[in-house]
Amino acid sequence: MAQHNEMARFISFEGGEGGGKSTQIARLADWLRARAETVVVTREPGGSPGAEEIRALFVTGAADRWDGATEALLVSAARRDHVRKTILPALESGAWVLCDRFADSTLAYQGYGRGLPLPLLQNLQDIATDGLLPSLTLWLDLPLEEGLRRATQRKGGEARFEGLDFAFHRRVAEGFAALAEAEPERFQRIDAEGSPEAVSARIAAAVCARFPDLA
Amino acid sequence: MAQHNEMARFISFEGGEGGGKSTQIARLADWLRARAETVVVTREPGGSPGAEEIRALFVTGAADRWDGATEALLVSAARRDHVRKTILPALESGAWVLCDRFADSTLAYQGYGRGLPLPLLQNLQDIATDGLLPSLTLWLDLPLEEGLRRATQRKGGEARFEGLDFAFHRRVAEGFAALAEAEPERFQRIDAEGSPEAVSARIAAAVCARFPDLA
Repeated sequence: MAQHNEMARFISFEGGEGGGKSTQIARLADWLRARAETVVVTREPGGSPGAEEIRALFVTGAADRWDGATEALLVSAARRDHVRKTILPALESGAWVLCDRFADSTLAYQGYGRGLPLPLLQNLQDIATDGLLPSLTLWLDLPLEEGLRRATQRKGGEARFEGLDFAFHRRVAEGFAALAEAEPERFQRIDAEGSPEAVSARIAAAVCARFPDLA
Repeated sequence: MAQHNEMARFISFEGGEGGGKSTQIARLADWLRARAETVVVTREPGGSPGAEEIRALFVTGAADRWDGATEALLVSAARRDHVRKTILPALESGAWVLCDRFADSTLAYQGYGRGLPLPLLQNLQDIATDGLLPSLTLWLDLPLEEGLRRATQRKGGEARFEGLDFAFHRRVAEGFAALAEAEPERFQRIDAEGSPEAVSARIAAAVCARFPDLA
């Protein structure tokens, strides 16, 4: 795959269920488009025709349908297809890419959540991405009870993850916190409480700080 | 996953297209059953309900649908499911497992054939199998022209691989030869020319030599 730019216009959104990722991605896309930017909104697992087919295996069925390592292999296959077919071509064309979950979700869910060794997962990510990382990752952080309450109210295709237990979701949240601590420039916590407008303002500030040309 | 026995009753069949693997697996299964053995016949990619769903992604569509690394990730996900759900339970119950392709095919097709680094593939195999290897791998070796001629006559679901070019199939065959040289006890070349009966006799001899209790 082509080498990526150090400051690729690639932003990922991370966090537990119910944190408002979809809403905030749509709002940031509108905000960028209002500045005459081209924006590609995508998601993981999925985001390319092949990866969406893999996603269908991944998000349906019983919670124990695949064990953690199988899940990590599947999501990495989907990620590689997504990077090659969607993300890199968009970045090369000059578009912004806003992605609902990326490699950090694998570390948080399969690593911290399910207990797979992080070096093993890092190996898989290297295969999947050839080293491409978002320039900015926005972690929409909400107290766990509030996120699960919101997620439960919603009907969605990710019911399988939401069916896993509370201790699991707590480990995932701790994983996101550890990732934020390890890479404070790239991986930024955004307080996801409050109105969508208030959260959007926090996100716009983080985006302008990371991409000063935009401000 | 549970640890496997050093001499697990696990035999894989490898080789290029048209080498007669399916026929010979069925004949060896009959031969073992005639000795009152319990036999599970399975195949890769596939062999468990989840892995068969992954197989459907893997064997259909255009030859360049997935790149080599994506393909290796997908087949490794399928292999892990297959090992956990089908192979290990069968071995633990005392059955023989006869498998049409296993990890060596990934090394031969994605490694030697498509040029992916072998250490990367070995990493994936460790994740997929937790170190389980067949006790005996029978490489049904046929001159390339003869194998492709036989494969072309047949109608099958693996048309995608058969559509790849001749140079690719030559590299795959060289890969199988290298694997046989590296592990001569486990990985044995079987001359696949001649009648099915003649090939079966060669296979029975190799099986009896490797599992002396059977002879």
